[in-house]
Amino acid sequence: MIAPTDIIRLEREAVVILDQTRLPGERVERVCSTVAELVAAIRELAVRGAPALGVVGAMGVALAASKAPDQPERFQRTVLAEAAMLATSRPTAINLSVGVQAALEAATGLWMEPTAARTAIVVAAQAFHRAEVRRCEEIGRHGATLFAMNARICSICNAGALATGGYGTALGVIRRLQDNGLSPTVWVPETRPLLQGARLTAWELAEEGIAHQVISDGAVASRFGLGLVDGVVVGADRIAANGDTANKVGTYGLAIVARYHGVPFYVAAPRTTIDPRTSTGAEISIEERPRAELAGVAGQRTVGDDSPIVNPAFDVTPAALIDAIITEDGVLRAPFDFSV
Amino acid sequence: MIAPTDIIRLEREAVVILDQTRLPGERVERVCSTVAELVAAIRELAVRGAPALGVVGAMGVALAASKAPDQPERFQRTVLAEAAMLATSRPTAINLSVGVQAALEAATGLWMEPTAARTAIVVAAQAFHRAEVRRCEEIGRHGATLFAMNARICSICNAGALATGGYGTALGVIRRLQDNGLSPTVWVPETRPLLQGARLTAWELAEEGIAHQVISDGAVASRFGLGLVDGVVVGADRIAANGDTANKVGTYGLAIVARYHGVPFYVAAPRTTIDPRTSTGAEISIEERPRAELAGVAGQRTVGDDSPIVNPAFDVTPAALIDAIITEDGVLRAPFDFSV
Repeated sequence: MIAPTDIIRLEREAVVILDQTRLPGERVERVCSTVAELVAAIRELAVRGAPALGVVGAMGVALAASKAPDQPERFQRTVLAEAAMLATSRPTAINLSVGVQAALEAATGLWMEPTAARTAIVVAAQAFHRAEVRRCEEIGRHGATLFAMNARICSICNAGALATGGYGTALGVIRRLQDNGLSPTVWVPETRPLLQGARLTAWELAEEGIAHQVISDGAVASRFGLGLVDGVVVGADRIAANGDTANKVGTYGLAIVARYHGVPFYVAAPRTTIDPRTSTGAEISIEERPRAELAGVAGQRTVGDDSPIVNPAFDVTPAALIDAIITEDGVLRAPFDFSV
Repeated sequence: MIAPTDIIRLEREAVVILDQTRLPGERVERVCSTVAELVAAIRELAVRGAPALGVVGAMGVALAASKAPDQPERFQRTVLAEAAMLATSRPTAINLSVGVQAALEAATGLWMEPTAARTAIVVAAQAFHRAEVRRCEEIGRHGATLFAMNARICSICNAGALATGGYGTALGVIRRLQDNGLSPTVWVPETRPLLQGARLTAWELAEEGIAHQVISDGAVASRFGLGLVDGVVVGADRIAANGDTANKVGTYGLAIVARYHGVPFYVAAPRTTIDPRTSTGAEISIEERPRAELAGVAGQRTVGDDSPIVNPAFDVTPAALIDAIITEDGVLRAPFDFSV
């Protein structure tokens, strides 16, 4: 069993994260004592997943505050500068800046009193973490109403405890089904290039005793073709006002394949993932990840130097392919309208 | 530039293959001096691709004949036993047994004269290789009529010179477009678990100076979504009488995504790939590959021991998703009927 503080926690002068790049082989904690170290951990995907990034965003501001100079102007300038660094360390996830903002707002009116501001920011960051876990538990409760006994569910990447700092969005739904005695079985596409499905989701499911099978990303469609999938539930990195959803690259193909076979496709995400200022998916900027992620594995070259590589981290699934979006407030059915 | 004898050749007492498991890092030849060594090379995918397997099947019988005892009954018994071993070393590819049969037929009436039988088998195996290359050149010529200038084409796995012992089926079409001055660009999904796209297709295209970009398998659908794909051409491991096509796992999903976006989907394969005795794809047995292919990369564990894995090598694309099948005889449009 995995506890929220196993994944991310704020200590006196550090943010401690379970290093997701080392799983499933090793369970190693990474201690980030500066915002620069935390930004590096975020960039290297030692911590990833939209909701978890919100939590580390908030905690990162607390870390910045704990280390910032005591002189009020310099305190404020330092914290704001480091907050800006944090907020932009990954381009696609809206949650990161939401977490950063939540922590900064706690300091409103307190910037001239660094000690009080520090305390307020730390309290806000801890509360943000607890609220995120509670939201996932609610998502799980609502989402579990969509599946029957022994449902065979496909979920790409990792939208679990590791991705959310506690319980999980898509995997929160699956956890709840298991808790309710409905014995789900999960198809886990390995999710190249970084294998979050194989390394993280499979590890979480094994920890929780939930039945699952790992497959290559290419084997997803034939699972549907053989009639072995009853539903899909995935997380989200950003949801536009019209319901278009950016998530791990491969999600769009999974949605098309689900629709082709008449299998329902659900997105599970906290409302913080919804960005009402982004009207459609076309406005979502897609992060391009480094060549090295695809060009080699464990030091062994898999792509020759003469071959160009394109490595987008996300894709956008149009709302038309999404049957419902599960948030902490309930199950929202298409058509979606999250504009303010 | 790649010559057919660079890929596979029959020497006096050996079959020599370019070891595809070592590309793109190293260009190493693997010398198989016994049928058992050749079977091991086939099983380890040092040589793979349906048409290439036909060629090594025929050459493997020649190797068996060259090593078999001179006493006629023992000669025949040994060659037939080793031929049977060869024919069953991979379960899905029909071509392997076609190549084996072609070589065996050359010995008809000659079994009691081992020296004459040996010569006949060697001549037949060499002729089989040349004919396979010629067939691919014809496939390329016919297939090239289906694409316009600067076509952006997606092709999964490796259906190139490496897979066919010379020119390629799907990549034969692309080679011919390039030779005709039509400058195609190729999207190359890396094709997990064994990365034949990243390692082999990208290497071939770079050798031939053909524009291409390597992507993760999950990034395929979003290339279509962004309007960056004009057509798909893939190889085939077995085509049933109704046109249902078994090919590298992931092909079925690619076909669904192509259809969803209104992009034509073509299969390119020599007629030897068509099995009129298999009426539909449901009858094609799908090879299950070892857990180790997905459980680790280069000695690093990617799936924990507590997580089960399913690793099918192929999937079946129903004829309804295939716009045309390109063979050496021309472009065949749906509906297909290859029953005898």
